Amino acid sequence: MKRDDILTAYNFRHACKSFDATKEIDTKDFHLIMETARLSPSSFGFEPWKFLVVESPALKEALKPVVWGGQGQIPTASRIVICLARKMPHMKYDSEYIQNFMTDIQKLPEEIVTMKGHFYKKFQENDFKILESERTLFDWSCKQCYIALGNMMTTAAMIGIDSCPMEGFDKEGVEGILAKKAGVDLTSFGVAYMVAFGYRENAPMEKTRQMKERVIEVI
Amino acid sequence: MKRDDILTAYNFRHACKSFDATKEIDTKDFHLIMETARLSPSSFGFEPWKFLVVESPALKEALKPVVWGGQGQIPTASRIVICLARKMPHMKYDSEYIQNFMTDIQKLPEEIVTMKGHFYKKFQENDFKILESERTLFDWSCKQCYIALGNMMTTAAMIGIDSCPMEGFDKEGVEGILAKKAGVDLTSFGVAYMVAFGYRENAPMEKTRQMKERVIEVI
Repeated sequence: MKRDDILTAYNFRHACKSFDATKEIDTKDFHLIMETARLSPSSFGFEPWKFLVVESPALKEALKPVVWGGQGQIPTASRIVICLARKMPHMKYDSEYIQNFMTDIQKLPEEIVTMKGHFYKKFQENDFKILESERTLFDWSCKQCYIALGNMMTTAAMIGIDSCPMEGFDKEGVEGILAKKAGVDLTSFGVAYMVAFGYRENAPMEKTRQMKERVIEVI
Repeated sequence: MKRDDILTAYNFRHACKSFDATKEIDTKDFHLIMETARLSPSSFGFEPWKFLVVESPALKEALKPVVWGGQGQIPTASRIVICLARKMPHMKYDSEYIQNFMTDIQKLPEEIVTMKGHFYKKFQENDFKILESERTLFDWSCKQCYIALGNMMTTAAMIGIDSCPMEGFDKEGVEGILAKKAGVDLTSFGVAYMVAFGYRENAPMEKTRQMKERVIEVI
């Protein structure tokens, strides 16, 4: 792939605060964005995510008051994705989800399942102390979801689509709505982030970043 | 950009466990990977990261025993990046880092600094309860760093370079080495992850993923 095209996409991307509500994202393009989320890497390959594509107008209306700037992005975005991260009951080393995942999805032979399971337990218990609390494990699941977030926004930018990542919302409020109106099981899932896609209405502000020398250090 | 080229890169990428030690990444290519890290988005645009490029042979030697599989990847990778995430003293809403960042890097006028600072405080205190503990804030910083992780690996794949993300290491051990041998200030920084780059030695296993229908849901 051309190096310049990659950089052009990174410079094109910005947090788009308001979209042109008359422009729809082509279904094929949206599928491509979501496919790069699905193919994203995650710790141990356990894909601790689920992506909800919000299409219901009633749901959008319900979300507006609990999302910052929800008045601007939610009604104008062509697509809104809510990423759910899996919690303790799915992600703990001895869960059914993990056991099934290794056999059914990763198709690992029995001895590898045992070995990988052993490493995963050690990883969760010792190295990063992920089992310290429900929150710690949830945050770790969320980290993996942010890999997919970066990839979705980059893919969008590469095909000329704007995006806006959203962390600014009343988490409990959003989760309450999702449980009530979309049947989301909050014992196993929590909201990691939202991200809106569409086409910009206005020119973005100039991108600012720290200088390379402040961010990258050779040791 | 061509849709097919994007998908090809996603299918090319895998967690490369052992690199061809005879192949070096071109400096220009490596700069491109790091530039896409630097241009990655982050919450409020506050770039809570620093990327250490490990070149010192003594440091690599010291890291080997505290990184899982460190015998395989560390000596064979062409480049190893350690991502540091910023902690409470830098990222809390009233820190000097944040205040300076808004004026010196983001070049915001005084009234916007006040407004943004107010929102950032509200975000940290209420919405995601990020100030609950040092760990909670650190994990939130790490999440942003994972956006850059996704982007670095994708950029690498787009130009035919392999990568391996690493979370499996003795975090305290690695941080101790970085503090002692590279002067990393552990009150303000912690290790988010490592990632190795190089060229594959062996063909990867077949990629496995959950089916689209299990991962993406329209609501």
